[in-house]
Order: sequence, then C-alpha cells, then structure tokens
Amino acid sequence: VLINKSNKENKLNKMFNANSIAIIGASNNPNKTSYQILKNLIDGAYRGKIYPINQKENEILGLKAYSKITDIDGGIDLAVIVIPARLIPETMKEMGEKNVNTAIIISGGFKEIGNYELEKEVVETANKYNISFVGPNCQGINYTYNNLCASWPLITAKGSLCIIAQSGTVAATLGTWAENEGIGATGIVSLGNKTDLNEMDFIDFFLKDENTKVIALNIEGFTNGKKFMEIAKNNKEKDIVVLKPGRTEKGKKVAQSHTKSVSGSDVIFDAACKQAGVIRAYSITELYDYSKALGLLKKPKGNRVMVITSSGGSGILATDIFEENYVEVVDLNPELSQKLKAELPSHCVVSNPLDLTGDTDAYRYEKCVNIANEYDDIDMFLLIFGDPIPNACNVVSSLKEKVSKPIIVCYLGGGEVEKEETLSMHRNGIPVFPAPERAAKAISILSRKCKGSD
Amino acid sequence: VLINKSNKENKLNKMFNANSIAIIGASNNPNKTSYQILKNLIDGAYRGKIYPINQKENEILGLKAYSKITDIDGGIDLAVIVIPARLIPETMKEMGEKNVNTAIIISGGFKEIGNYELEKEVVETANKYNISFVGPNCQGINYTYNNLCASWPLITAKGSLCIIAQSGTVAATLGTWAENEGIGATGIVSLGNKTDLNEMDFIDFFLKDENTKVIALNIEGFTNGKKFMEIAKNNKEKDIVVLKPGRTEKGKKVAQSHTKSVSGSDVIFDAACKQAGVIRAYSITELYDYSKALGLLKKPKGNRVMVITSSGGSGILATDIFEENYVEVVDLNPELSQKLKAELPSHCVVSNPLDLTGDTDAYRYEKCVNIANEYDDIDMFLLIFGDPIPNACNVVSSLKEKVSKPIIVCYLGGGEVEKEETLSMHRNGIPVFPAPERAAKAISILSRKCKGSD
Repeated sequence: VLINKSNKENKLNKMFNANSIAIIGASNNPNKTSYQILKNLIDGAYRGKIYPINQKENEILGLKAYSKITDIDGGIDLAVIVIPARLIPETMKEMGEKNVNTAIIISGGFKEIGNYELEKEVVETANKYNISFVGPNCQGINYTYNNLCASWPLITAKGSLCIIAQSGTVAATLGTWAENEGIGATGIVSLGNKTDLNEMDFIDFFLKDENTKVIALNIEGFTNGKKFMEIAKNNKEKDIVVLKPGRTEKGKKVAQSHTKSVSGSDVIFDAACKQAGVIRAYSITELYDYSKALGLLKKPKGNRVMVITSSGGSGILATDIFEENYVEVVDLNPELSQKLKAELPSHCVVSNPLDLTGDTDAYRYEKCVNIANEYDDIDMFLLIFGDPIPNACNVVSSLKEKVSKPIIVCYLGGGEVEKEETLSMHRNGIPVFPAPERAAKAISILSRKCKGSD
Repeated sequence: VLINKSNKENKLNKMFNANSIAIIGASNNPNKTSYQILKNLIDGAYRGKIYPINQKENEILGLKAYSKITDIDGGIDLAVIVIPARLIPETMKEMGEKNVNTAIIISGGFKEIGNYELEKEVVETANKYNISFVGPNCQGINYTYNNLCASWPLITAKGSLCIIAQSGTVAATLGTWAENEGIGATGIVSLGNKTDLNEMDFIDFFLKDENTKVIALNIEGFTNGKKFMEIAKNNKEKDIVVLKPGRTEKGKKVAQSHTKSVSGSDVIFDAACKQAGVIRAYSITELYDYSKALGLLKKPKGNRVMVITSSGGSGILATDIFEENYVEVVDLNPELSQKLKAELPSHCVVSNPLDLTGDTDAYRYEKCVNIANEYDDIDMFLLIFGDPIPNACNVVSSLKEKVSKPIIVCYLGGGEVEKEETLSMHRNGIPVFPAPERAAKAISILSRKCKGSD
C-alpha cells in the first residue's frame, strides 16, 4: 500500500479526531503508564468509546476490558500501544485484521537502545497493514478540542498553541505550564523515535488546524531540515518557534547520540531560520514565552513600545531588556505628554516608562492607554502591574476590545490578587508574564517578526 | 546627637528584633496599606506588642487603638509611619518625646515627586530626635526570625536568603517566590528613597546576621559604590548577588530620573563586581535563582558536573547551557563507566549526561550518585527528574547527608508529583529549578564563585 500524502493526512485527521480508542496493554496498576493514559482519557472527558485491552482483566477503571483488539465489535479509530516492545509486531497484525490503521506506540526498547532489528520489523509490519504510527518510545498525543488526552500529564485547557516535541518531557512541561496558566493548547505531540510519523507530518497537520495559531517545536534533529524550512517559509499565517539544542560542540555530540541523527552547523541553522521566518528559542522558558505571546497577540506595526507601570524599578528593568533586544522605548511626543499630564495626578512624572506610582488603580492604566492609543508613534503597550492591583483583568480585557495595538502584561509582587488577575487575563486571551525581563523579551519577538515581514 | 556606626547598628538590631511596634496611621479600611501591614503583623504571628495609632478609631483589627504615640504606656521599639507626608515631621517630634528612635516611613510624597523641602525637614527632625528611618516611599521591612512582617505581601517562611531592594516590587516579588517555593528568607528590606538608612547599613547588618547566607541586592544607584565594593571584597563568608539595571543608555537615563542619582559606566561596575567577588544577575529571575542556589549549597571544588536525568532531551538542553557558561560536562572515566554499567539496566547508555530513561525510579539516581561521588573528577551533580517520579525528595535528602559535593535538582514535566516533591525538597534545603536552563545557569554561578576564590 502506497502511503501518500493525502493518505497520511486522512490518518492524522482520524487520529486526532478519533471517535474510538483501544488501549492495548491497559492496566489496573496505578503505577503503570497505561493506567495513567486510560485515566487521563476518562478524566479529560473524552467523548468517544474507550476499549481497554488486557488478557487477564475483565474491567479496568470501570470499563469492560477485552482480550484482544479483534474481540471488539465496533470500529477503532486509534490504538494506543503500551506493551513490551517484542510483542508489538504481533499486535499490529491483529490491528491489520481489525482494519485499525493509526497507532501511538508508547513503549520503548527500539533504536534508542540499539534494538534496530525490532524497529525495522515494526516498520515492515506497519507498512504491510497500512498502519501509521507515532513513536515508538514516546509520550503520546493530546488534542484538547477532541478532549483526547492520550498522554500524560492530564491537560485539558483549550488554547491556540500547538506543542510538537522530540522530548516527551519538554512536551509535558510546556503542556503543564499552558494548563496551569490557563492559556491552554490545541495539540501536544511527543514524537519519540519518529520512526514513521515525524515532525513534518504534524507540522503539516497543525498548520491546517483552524484552532492553532502558533507551533512550539522542540527538535533535536530534523528528519528533513530543508523541507522544514521550505514549509515554514511558505507558511504566512502561523508562527513557528523552535528550540533545537546542540548549539555547542558537546551539546551537539550528546544530541546526536540521543537521537541517532547527525545535525549540521548551528550557524547555518540559525541563518536558515532567519530566512524562513522561524523564531528561535534558546530554552524551554523562551519556547513557552514566545509561543504564548505569538499565540495570543496580533503583530505590532513597528518596534516602538510604551511602558506603563506602577513600579518604577520594574520599568527600568524592562527598559534595559528592550534596548538589548532592538525594541524602542520611544520618547513620548509633546502633545501626548501634555494630554497625559492633564489627566494624571501631579506626582506622576510623565515619560516612557510612565510611572503611575504605587497608589495607582487599574483605571489609571486604562486612561493612559486610551489616550496613547491615538498616537501612531506607539506600536504596542507593556503594562506592568507591580502591586496587588485589583480589576486589572477587567480593564485590560476591555482595552483589548477597543485598542488595535498589542497589549502585553507583566504582573508581579501582587500576592493573591496577582494570582487571580493573572489567571483571569490568561483565560481572556491576554498574555501575562511574571517578570519584566520575560515580558520584554516576548515583546521583542513579536516586533522582530513584524519587522521581518515588512 | 552623633549617629555613629555602633549607634546605627544598635538601632537596626532594635528594628529587626523589635519587641513592640506602633503603626502610625493604622486604618480599619482594608484597601489601605496601613491596614494591610497591621494585618500582616498579626497574621504573621508577630509575638511582640502592636499599637495601632489612629485619632478616630478605638479599635483596629481587634487591637486597642491610640490617638497618639505618647498615649501609649509601654516602650516602643519601632514605629511604622503610614500618614500623609506633610504630617510626618510633627509625628517624629512625638516619637522623640516618647523616645522612639527607629522608624519605617512607608508614605511617599518626597524627593521622588520633587518635594525636596519636606524630605529635608524630615531629615532634620530625625537628626534632632535621634531617629533612624527606612524610606520614605518604601514597602517596609520583614524579618522572618522575629515573625515581623511590617511590609506586604505576607511572607513568613524562614530561610537563608536576605533581600535588599530599592524597588519595593522587586522585594515583594523575590519574597513571594521564596515564600511560595518554600525556601523562605531571613529579611526583606524595601529601601525606598534611602534618605537616612541606605543599602550599606542593611548589608552591614545582614552580613553579621547568623541566619543569612546570601544577600540578594537590587539597586538602581549606590549611595557609595566604592565602599560597597570594599565591604563585599572583605566579606569572605557570605555571597552577594546584585541586580543593577541601567546597563543600556536608555535604561541608565530612566534609572537616573527614577532615583535622582547619577550612576557610572556599566563596564566599570562590572569589572568592580568581578574584583570584589560580587555576582551579577541580569534579571529578577536570575537574581532569585542565583541567590537560591548560593543560599542552599556549598561551593563545589571545581567546575565539572555530572548530569543524571530521566529525560534525554532535558540533558541535552542542560549541556548547551553548561558549555556556554564554562561548566564542564565531564567525560566519565572508564572505571566509573564500568561500575555504572554493572549497576544499571542494559537499556541505559552510560555517558554524561547519564540518561536513566523514562522507566527510572528515584533509587536509580541514588545508586548512581553514590557510585560517582567516589570520583574526584566530578565536582557536583545535576539531577533532572523529567517525569512524575515519586520519592525524589527522600532520595535527594538522604544523599545530601552523605555526599559532600553539591547536588542541584531540576524537576519538570511531573504534574502533581512534581509539585509535592519540589516543595518538600525546598523545605529540606535542596534547590530545585523548573527548567534545565535555569538549573544549569545557577550551577554555573556556583562554580564561577568557587573558581574566583581558588
């Protein structure tokens, strides 16, 4: 059977939008991965049918268990395989008989430990039965818009961020942060050994996925770097942020030994990213922060920012980072300064950063943004709430409706009020960062992207 | 009255170890700062006497209120002043009558808004009545070992980290992080305008404070930069980490306008820091991370690290950051490799980073550290838990007792297990970082410091 592109596309569609899932190797032991995945599907309110497969159990987590996949009456869209590696070819044969042709192989024990023979056998069996699979040696997939968490930990918050990662841990970390912060995700894919489906297949899928605005990619070695850059370059609508370790000689050596793939010079990769409009992150935190900002905000028209803050000190910290990252903390034009002076209490010194001082409430920010929004020499706003300032979410949410320029928020030093307001803002699609440096770096990425497309 | 050094020292002792506090301007209105401070003293289980001063109320938060400080019968060690700026000189006169000679002036409305006259009057009155004061225009002080949170937000966790910050928001942010993570603090000082007591006074105090191991300093302009460097250089026992914005031209301009002080070249400051053994941080996150590592760990003998991880991808990410920051991810010597191979399952490839793979439990880490600890070519360990691995805290705590080399932990992608284990480890004095890059950078600081003192 020829696995052509549209065949693959159909299979990925079937996988992410699966209406029925078999967990092959499901277990009643809470310490097992297979138990955790089954539990996450149930706790994540998956609406399709779930069939646990286990030769010894009659029931797992309240669901009827089956001995083999061929014992199930209905059709199966997706099989999640969590059994010892050596048993997988036989299982794939049964999948073939039952016409199940998408799978996630969680189990390790292949190429990554030198077991090339078994990996080859799995590929051949998959080809024979027209099965496409994620992994092996991976942490599964998650598609929040189908309540499908065939992975761990449990992540259910819906958002606009897609995570595709070679490292299961990086996928889990980004997913957890997105879940805890309330910004959510569309899909999370742990690539594992990429023996069949690889990063390109998932990038293709999520570039077409209407809920996805940005792809956060963690990759140790590209299956086809040239093709990746081409697709990235041709894609005008969505952003791709990539974290690719192996920048240093030692890092590259370790990456090559881990992924069994050879990767080229980092200088060349960097140049290719710039040309293709791919944004580079140099740490998990940057990968998350940049993706969050890009997923939630429109692009600014230019790189001139106005900073409005209750904390003078935080304003200075942000200014340094802006200057170091080619964002202009623009001098306010005299007319705007006059208007702001007329509206603000006399103890507020009008400049950029604009220090509203510790006695400010959220409405003083609103007033300033509304006035400054009229001026074309300001492209975007950074609002720093450096105290427990209530109603920040209400104010910024209403500004977001009226103001066309991107608004990014930094909230810090605000105790319990900060926690609540930050979560509410994230749920309203406003990116909030916990320190000025992180907000300023994320803004620099937004405006770099805008400059590239000018 | 001559305010000599030992006089000041006595006063700072009295301030931080105060047995009785008057809150001048205490209020029943929960939206007022003065209410919040009083509440934090009470909720923070302050054991001394608290006297709210308010001309209109009889009782505030269950405590008897007094019209003026002179109405109180007992002695007062510390006055917290939260009244309009213009009323402060008169209040200081009453403090003088009552022989109260330490104060925190929270109120703003002085130099920072151009009101130099009033600030001068406050200084003169303070001198006349032998009063030393923090602020004005500040966020107060906190000394956890006296349960004294005369500040906000409420921070009570005891630790080894002292925070001295020109920015009240930076102080509050670091304090909150230390509280939430369970690592705690000794003291937190918001310097404000530094009109009387300045950073040097507090650095002097906390260098002598037996609970303090590291000082995290955020400063926009030094009162006496030369003296600071001298004291830092002569101090052999404790670490000082400094975050001083104004690195860029624009940042310097904003800092100078905010603090009304002129600061010199950043290149010269940087050189002076290196000479004096002061560690520089370039962001609030770095200031926190470096202080946390230095506050909890001994110095390694050299800069050679062994990385033990359940997540291959995270190991690679850490390797890049190490290489970029002069930490050697050392090749394992053949004898050590042999011993590890004999102990580990065959699917673990023995190298550095050592990938224990996703099926590891915490005890596999223990085994490896115990073996590798015998080898002199390893100076420290980074343990990366990249999955929900239980018992990490038990294992690392017991290793900490036996192993002389510093152990730093990175825990990520571990969901609820991660949350619990991280908090427990922090409470046991083990530094845990939520991403490999942050752990690796903190380690690079530890080993840089060790090289400097060689």
